[in-house]
Amino acid sequence: MSVLIDFSIFPVDKGTSVSPYVARAVSIIQQSGLDHNLGPMGTSIEGDWPEVMAVVNRCFEALQTDCDRIYFTIKADYRKAGENRLSGKVRSVEKKLT
Amino acid sequence: MSVLIDFSIFPVDKGTSVSPYVARAVSIIQQSGLDHNLGPMGTSIEGDWPEVMAVVNRCFEALQTDCDRIYFTIKADYRKAGENRLSGKVRSVEKKLT
Amino acid sequence: MSVLIDFSIFPVDKGTSVSPYVARAVSIIQQSGLDHNLGPMGTSIEGDWPEVMAVVNRCFEALQTDCDRIYFTIKADYRKAGENRLSGKVRSVEKKLT
Amino acid sequence: MSVLIDFSIFPVDKGTSVSPYVARAVSIIQQSGLDHNLGPMGTSIEGDWPEVMAVVNRCFEALQTDCDRIYFTIKADYRKAGENRLSGKVRSVEKKLT
Repeated sequence: MSVLIDFSIFPVDKGTSVSPYVARAVSIIQQSGLDHNLGPMGTSIEGDWPEVMAVVNRCFEALQTDCDRIYFTIKADYRKAGENRLSGKVRSVEKKLT
Repeated sequence: MSVLIDFSIFPVDKGTSVSPYVARAVSIIQQSGLDHNLGPMGTSIEGDWPEVMAVVNRCFEALQTDCDRIYFTIKADYRKAGENRLSGKVRSVEKKLT
Repeated sequence: MSVLIDFSIFPVDKGTSVSPYVARAVSIIQQSGLDHNLGPMGTSIEGDWPEVMAVVNRCFEALQTDCDRIYFTIKADYRKAGENRLSGKVRSVEKKLT
Repeated sequence: MSVLIDFSIFPVDKGTSVSPYVARAVSIIQQSGLDHNLGPMGTSIEGDWPEVMAVVNRCFEALQTDCDRIYFTIKADYRKAGENRLSGKVRSVEKKLT
């Protein structure tokens, strides 16, 4: 059983340079110990849903301390029989490329 | 303080007709008592973040009972000073239309 | 044949109040003549894919004139046999609510 | 000037194993020559907006040939002064991690 999410979060009230705030979230994701992969448009995180949501919560709370408007998106893919999908999904597609 | 989300959830292993599963989620959202608005591509829900997330959790658990693969998306907009934004955001845009 | 999208667009470099920019996009969507529905987290638009994309393009170009950073999201649902899904999808779910 | 998107596309009428269809789209993205990065929840693509949209179009058309229902999502981040952001955005965040 595995939930894989793509997660992005940033403040809308801080102007164009939001990377310090994104770094704050990424640091929390790293400390969680969950499998994750930092990408240019979001971070992929894999785990049980309660664990994954707890990390999302901590990221949101960390930005709430000094941001008045925050936007975040989650795309989630749950598969009952899934495991190690962070790398497995990419491998599965790559094998089928001709 | 308010979080407004757009939430969509559906199974990927049940073929083309997913509305029975969507209805199950919408029914849970209605029973939550939170302000919401059912749209063709997702349901908008407004509330405190813990309340909103609890509803998302219940929808996900309700589909897990008989779906092997589930996809869901959340777009969230938090505004510290916000209230009644489910209708307020639409009104604010409509006032500016010329 | 129908593509139904949920579309949201806003500048990231203009601070917290983005409704004037959203209104600019919504005005373009209205002028397109395509079926649409303005919601708090995005606008649903239905049509052929080339028509729908042309509208998205015009909205993006309209914001590019004075915005240095723009974020937008599209969720799209294509159904070969679909028609009038803007209202039809909601009705189909409502019928199944108990 | 650069648009960076996160793009995911899959059929909803083909059951749980959608990787052959995803591979078809990824193959088209690879042939486009645009900078891209395949991730577990989507592929990041960078380029001018017309180029990027042309690739999205080709992927959608390739799935339309044999899929009756298709879901796809785009998250886009435009920055007027941006370049090489596929790797640059990740580096910018990594530098700020402590």
